[in-house]
Amino acid sequence: MAKAAANISPFAPARLAEMPVVEGVKLAACAAGIRYKNRSDLMLAVLAPGTIAAGVLTRSKTCSAPVVWCRESLAEGKARALVINSGNANAFTGKKGSEAARLTAEMAARAVGCTPREVLLASTGVIGEPLDPGKFVNLLGGLAETADASAWHEAARAIMTTDTFAKLATRRVRLGPAEVIINGFAKGSGMIAPDLATMLANVFTDAPIGRAALQAMLASGADKTFNCITVDSDTSTSDTLLLFATGTAAARGAPRIEDAGSPDGVRFAAALDAVLLDLALAVVKDGEGVSKFVSIEVTGAESDAAARRIGFAIANSPLVKTAIAGEDPNWGRIVMAVGKAGEAADRDRLAIAFGELVVAEAGERAPGYDERRLASYMKGREIAIRVDVGLGGGRATVWTGDLTHGYISINADYRS
Amino acid sequence: MAKAAANISPFAPARLAEMPVVEGVKLAACAAGIRYKNRSDLMLAVLAPGTIAAGVLTRSKTCSAPVVWCRESLAEGKARALVINSGNANAFTGKKGSEAARLTAEMAARAVGCTPREVLLASTGVIGEPLDPGKFVNLLGGLAETADASAWHEAARAIMTTDTFAKLATRRVRLGPAEVIINGFAKGSGMIAPDLATMLANVFTDAPIGRAALQAMLASGADKTFNCITVDSDTSTSDTLLLFATGTAAARGAPRIEDAGSPDGVRFAAALDAVLLDLALAVVKDGEGVSKFVSIEVTGAESDAAARRIGFAIANSPLVKTAIAGEDPNWGRIVMAVGKAGEAADRDRLAIAFGELVVAEAGERAPGYDERRLASYMKGREIAIRVDVGLGGGRATVWTGDLTHGYISINADYRS
Repeated sequence: MAKAAANISPFAPARLAEMPVVEGVKLAACAAGIRYKNRSDLMLAVLAPGTIAAGVLTRSKTCSAPVVWCRESLAEGKARALVINSGNANAFTGKKGSEAARLTAEMAARAVGCTPREVLLASTGVIGEPLDPGKFVNLLGGLAETADASAWHEAARAIMTTDTFAKLATRRVRLGPAEVIINGFAKGSGMIAPDLATMLANVFTDAPIGRAALQAMLASGADKTFNCITVDSDTSTSDTLLLFATGTAAARGAPRIEDAGSPDGVRFAAALDAVLLDLALAVVKDGEGVSKFVSIEVTGAESDAAARRIGFAIANSPLVKTAIAGEDPNWGRIVMAVGKAGEAADRDRLAIAFGELVVAEAGERAPGYDERRLASYMKGREIAIRVDVGLGGGRATVWTGDLTHGYISINADYRS
Repeated sequence: MAKAAANISPFAPARLAEMPVVEGVKLAACAAGIRYKNRSDLMLAVLAPGTIAAGVLTRSKTCSAPVVWCRESLAEGKARALVINSGNANAFTGKKGSEAARLTAEMAARAVGCTPREVLLASTGVIGEPLDPGKFVNLLGGLAETADASAWHEAARAIMTTDTFAKLATRRVRLGPAEVIINGFAKGSGMIAPDLATMLANVFTDAPIGRAALQAMLASGADKTFNCITVDSDTSTSDTLLLFATGTAAARGAPRIEDAGSPDGVRFAAALDAVLLDLALAVVKDGEGVSKFVSIEVTGAESDAAARRIGFAIANSPLVKTAIAGEDPNWGRIVMAVGKAGEAADRDRLAIAFGELVVAEAGERAPGYDERRLASYMKGREIAIRVDVGLGGGRATVWTGDLTHGYISINADYRS
C-alpha cells in the first residue's frame, strides 16, 4: 500500500505564499508554553478602528467557550483584535472556560485600546482540559506593541496543532480605482468535517464592505468550500471562520460594497471564494496521515443537497478511503457508499469514473473496463472520482483524503 | 498503542458452540472455488415442507441481486432451501446478476424438490464482479444429497469472508410440553453498519410460528441487536437476516404461536433476541482489526431514537475509535461526538463515565477525575462508555470496536 505520510504531508508547498500587506491589519505571535515546547502557540491580530467582522461558527452542541464568545461579539459585528491560542481548545471546560475567554478578551482589549466585545477569540487543541489564561494574558500587551503588517507566516504557524504546514492564501480584486487585498490563513488536520465552518480560518481584507454584505458573502463562500471538505467525518467543537474588512481601501477610492449581489460584490465574492477554497483544500491536503488528495464530483442527483450527501457518504467511507490508500481501484465500495447515502439512486443508471476512465455504467461494470489502466491511475497523488446518479440535475463536489496507517498512528497517541 | 489484531480476533472463542439439531433443517457445505482456494465457499440448507420464512433486508439503494430475490420470495413467506456463497457478493452486476440469482434458485429447487420461489439466496464478497453460477449450480444436487442435521459449523465457515472465526449461537425455549431450539449463524467483519439487518445472519427454529408473528419478532429483535452495532459505519449492499421456522416441534406438542404478544410469543422472542444479540456481538468482536470491544450506553436523551443516534455518533467517530485503540482516555473526543450528533444536548448537563469511573459531569471534568485509574481501565479488552445527556428519558446501547492499523491493512489490500 501507499506509504503513509508519517511526518510532513506530501502536499506541503515548497514555500509559503508571499502575503501582501492588508492595510489596517497587524499581526504578532509568540510562545506562551500552553502545551507545546519551543514553538509559538499564541497570536494576536490588531485591526484598525472601523473594522467590520463576519463569522461562521460550528453548530456543534458541545461548542467551545471561544465559539460562544464569538457568537456574542459577532452580533455587534465590530472587531479590533483577534486572539488565537493553540494547544488547548478551551472546550467542555464549564464556567472556568467562559471565565478564561472573558479574561483573555479583557486583557486584549486593554492592550489594543478597545472594548472586550470588539475582541474575537479562538482556541484549538485538547478538549476538556482547563485553559489557564494566566499563561498568556500578560503577553498580549507585548504582542500588541510588536504587531507588524508582514507577520502572516508567523501568525499562521502559531495556530497549528497536528498540521504539518502553515496554510495561507491571497487574492487581489480591483474595486473602482483601487486594488484591494484578501489574505487568509487556516489550520486544521483532524476532526475535520466542518458543519458551517472549519476548524479555524481567518480572512482579512482592506475592502470597505457593509456588515450584511460581508456576512452574506462569507456564508455563501463557506458553503461552497469549507462545507464541502472532510478529513475524518468528525466535526470539531471549535470550527470558526472569521472575515475582517478594515475598509482602509476606501481612502484609495475603493467603493463601499453594501450589496453582495452588486457587480463589485460579485467580483469581490469570487476572489473571496478563491481564498476560501485555497484554504479549505490546504486543510484537506494536510489531513492527518493523508497520502492522496481525492475530489468527488457527483452529478445527476435529485438535488444539489442530495448530491452533496452522496459525495460525503463516499468521502467519509472508511472502506473507500482505505482502498484509495491501498491504490486499489475497488469501485464496488463506491457503489456501497452511494447505496447507504439515503438519497434516491437507481442502481441500473449509476455510472462511475476515475479520472477519464469509466469503470461502471448502467448498473454494472463498463464494457471497456481495463483494470491495468485503472491500477496505474490509482498510483497518482490526486484521484478524481466522478459519480453520475442518472436521475436529475443535482450536482456537488466534495474533497477529502485517504485513510492511512498515519491517521491511526497520529490519533491513537495524540493526547497521552 | 494496543497491538492490532493482525490475524485472529482476540475475541475468537476457544471453541465453537455445540449446536443441537433443529428438526427439519439439514445443512451441507463445499468448496466451489468461487474466489478462495482450499476452503468451503458454498452452503445449502434444506428445510422441511411447511417451513415459514421471515427476513429483514438492507435498505441500501444499491442492494445486491440476492437481496432483490429474497425480497420477492419473502413476500410469499415459504422456504424449502437457502443457498449462500462467499467470495462474490453478486452486487452491482446488472441483469447478469439477476440471471445468476434466478439460475441458482432454479438449480437448488430442482435439487431439493420445490419451486424456485421457495429458495432464499445470499451472496457475500467482492462487489461489482460478475458471479459465474456455473461454478456451483452443478454442486447443489450433491449438497442436497449429503445434507445433514449436524453440519452447523461447516455451514457457518462456508459463509466467512474476512471473518476470523465462525459465529454461532443457540438457545432452548419450552413451549407447552415441548422444548424448541433456536440456532443461528452469521458472518460479518467489515462494511458493518447494518441498516435494518446485518451482513448475513441465518436463524432456524423448529417452533411452529405463524408468518406475521415470525416477521414481527424478527424485526423487533433485529432493531435491538443488529441495528445497534457498527464496525466501520459502512452499510453493506447485502445485509440479510433470515429466520426459518420449520414447525416440526408441533408434532411434539409445541403450541403454535400466531401472536408475537402472547405469553409463548414473548418467551420465544426473548430467546430469539438472545440468539440475535450473541450473533451481533460476535460480528463486532470479529470486526476488522478489532483489539477492543466497546459498549456505549446513552441515557438522558430526548428519545430512544435520539440516544441511538448519539450512540452511533460516538461509535462511528474515527477519533474516538483510534483513541480507544491507543488506550488513551481521550474523553474530549466523546464530547465532540455528542456535539456533532445533531441531537439535543446541553453541554452543561453532560456526564461521561468509563466503566465506573466518572470523568466528566455538569459540563466539565469531574472533581474526582483520576487520569491514572482511567489509563489503567483503558488497558482492558472490553471498554464500557456511559454518556448521560441530562435532558430526558431516552436511552440506547450500541456496540462497536476500536479502529486499528489492522483495519487499514485489511482494507487497503483486500481486493487487489
